[in-house]
Amino acid sequence: MSLIQPTRLERLSAIRTASNVDAFLLTSPSTVKCFSGYFYDFEIGPSPFHLLPAALLIAPEQGISMVIADNESFENQVSGSDISVVQYASYGYETAIDPAKEFMFKLLKELKQKNLGNAVIGIEQNALPFIVSKGILSEYPDVKFVDVSDEIANLKAVKDGDEIDNICKATALCDIGQSSVLRNAKVGMTELELFSIVQTEIEASVGMRVPIMLDLVSGARTKEGGGSPSNTIIQQGDLILSDLTPCLNGYWGDSCNTIAIGKPTDIQRDHFKMIQQALGSAIDFIRPGVKANAVDGLLRKHLKSAGNYGHHSGHGVGTTSHELPRIVPYNDILLEENMVIALEPAIYTDVYGIRLEHMVLVKENGCEILTKFSHQFEQE
Amino acid sequence: MSLIQPTRLERLSAIRTASNVDAFLLTSPSTVKCFSGYFYDFEIGPSPFHLLPAALLIAPEQGISMVIADNESFENQVSGSDISVVQYASYGYETAIDPAKEFMFKLLKELKQKNLGNAVIGIEQNALPFIVSKGILSEYPDVKFVDVSDEIANLKAVKDGDEIDNICKATALCDIGQSSVLRNAKVGMTELELFSIVQTEIEASVGMRVPIMLDLVSGARTKEGGGSPSNTIIQQGDLILSDLTPCLNGYWGDSCNTIAIGKPTDIQRDHFKMIQQALGSAIDFIRPGVKANAVDGLLRKHLKSAGNYGHHSGHGVGTTSHELPRIVPYNDILLEENMVIALEPAIYTDVYGIRLEHMVLVKENGCEILTKFSHQFEQE
Repeated sequence: MSLIQPTRLERLSAIRTASNVDAFLLTSPSTVKCFSGYFYDFEIGPSPFHLLPAALLIAPEQGISMVIADNESFENQVSGSDISVVQYASYGYETAIDPAKEFMFKLLKELKQKNLGNAVIGIEQNALPFIVSKGILSEYPDVKFVDVSDEIANLKAVKDGDEIDNICKATALCDIGQSSVLRNAKVGMTELELFSIVQTEIEASVGMRVPIMLDLVSGARTKEGGGSPSNTIIQQGDLILSDLTPCLNGYWGDSCNTIAIGKPTDIQRDHFKMIQQALGSAIDFIRPGVKANAVDGLLRKHLKSAGNYGHHSGHGVGTTSHELPRIVPYNDILLEENMVIALEPAIYTDVYGIRLEHMVLVKENGCEILTKFSHQFEQE
Repeated sequence: MSLIQPTRLERLSAIRTASNVDAFLLTSPSTVKCFSGYFYDFEIGPSPFHLLPAALLIAPEQGISMVIADNESFENQVSGSDISVVQYASYGYETAIDPAKEFMFKLLKELKQKNLGNAVIGIEQNALPFIVSKGILSEYPDVKFVDVSDEIANLKAVKDGDEIDNICKATALCDIGQSSVLRNAKVGMTELELFSIVQTEIEASVGMRVPIMLDLVSGARTKEGGGSPSNTIIQQGDLILSDLTPCLNGYWGDSCNTIAIGKPTDIQRDHFKMIQQALGSAIDFIRPGVKANAVDGLLRKHLKSAGNYGHHSGHGVGTTSHELPRIVPYNDILLEENMVIALEPAIYTDVYGIRLEHMVLVKENGCEILTKFSHQFEQE
């Protein structure tokens, strides 16, 4: 039987010890989501009224503070009662407000209250703005920054139970979307019109707008493996490749199916089956201790006779759409229980492309398929 | 007759002189768009394979370089032949790639080639990642950074002709969207279903997905002034407030209308007319030399008898949805020719809200309305 895994906060504590840091200042939106539950909807671009969506200051003995703009709603989002939410003035119309200055003022106050004036602080160096590092060092010249991006990325690859629940809510949207493509794709419709129906069904199911990263291409466009939906009109005999990657409250789902409009050719049918079998074999093979590149190699070997697909075989999914572990030839890390992985083998010919994708959760003795839709090639 | 205005690159040169900097390293997506034409579609969130969408190194005598990931398409986007595009490896499946390291390697090479090893470099300090400042200072300890964010923001408030053309393409999408709301809103439909039709019409008109920031609320939700469309069902007698802010290739449009489903009350009709008249008066009043807060004051004075709306009266629009000049009580800057401004007066009561918005271009002797739709309260 599986032992109870340490939670992500416990694993963060282990990073603190191993990296010799006193505290963490975490600023990438996906990491903030992971440790606080707070999700900033990126779909409308960066806010002109914020420096950052939010910043998380985690000092295990002194508690966790989240610095966030006062016009952001975080209720029903922030997980646990251990996080003290510190709001800064960000938008006003009656007096001038500089949100970056207000943010810095509150952050420096938190550093002081937590006695971090000469601390070693673990940061994500790609996601920390210059103004923040400069502001901290001006006030506290003895602070040292240590980049812990790689450690955090490795930590995020293994999910806690609440995260798996959230991912499953996102994969349910993949199921709705793939079912919608299969039912609604018709000759004469544009790719954009089809996507509009799909998006409407996904959003209606949760009663809110849902950011969706996607490939939705028809006919000859499928051989490129993807692309955004366009005004290209769906024709009899086309294949439609739909890779739907919705983000629900900060956790992503990922899925791909390819369908035929009308009767596919025998070779197309064979290719579809080959990919389905390859995917099935990989799913049977995955368990803790298997190397990521062994999964990649297995998929490529199965499809070798039809050529090599020029992309990864898969990737982790969580608060980022593509995260660790990468399922690629060079990555020999061992898969672990509670990793969530999307697998997406494909065949591309000179005239069409077929790709099938499922998301799986690595479990003690194997893996569980999280996307529940079936890969179906032909419409009823 | 109006004199020919200096272009934004000429105005950037003036900032260089005034701020005593040798070169600029510009990293905010909206500034990169403004000076290069390159637009990163934020709608799918930050790419896990990039450090930044792109960075622009502008050293007037040594030319302009744009450092960008090799998996980003920039063709037909980058304006002018003066920009040398430097690509860095960002995604690969056969060997491990660290996009941040690759980015830094190329950026440092560009700094060297332009002899900027001991330069004073103007930056946008909110948008420069720590890893970049650290990487530059490790290699070139004599480099000095000077924040020029405010100067760049002021520069962007005044548009060149090509930018006005791009903004007009975005406002045309506002017109399509507002017409769609008026034609399609029906009792029994959810807000999300209505938005789906609106979005489909907007996207079909340009044959591509279009990021749309929006308020689309019905009934009692209108009194809050906005919100995302939900599964709330549109009822007879509801008002629908639709603030549609689409982004086309990096330039934004902005617009708001409020419509009645069925027959509005006399007071609602009066409120609608009051706002329409206030907006008309402000548009008549706007010309170069008028103070921003005089426009704000005029709008509030017109609507005073119905209470004060708790937000700005307007804002600049360009490569950011809200930019300078802010039309607010405290802002006494003088409006200039070629500023583009959205004006959005409103009345909110205890039971409903009405807001009307147009975008205008400040011209030599007045202003031109860029959004061409009419504010119409009742459906045919």
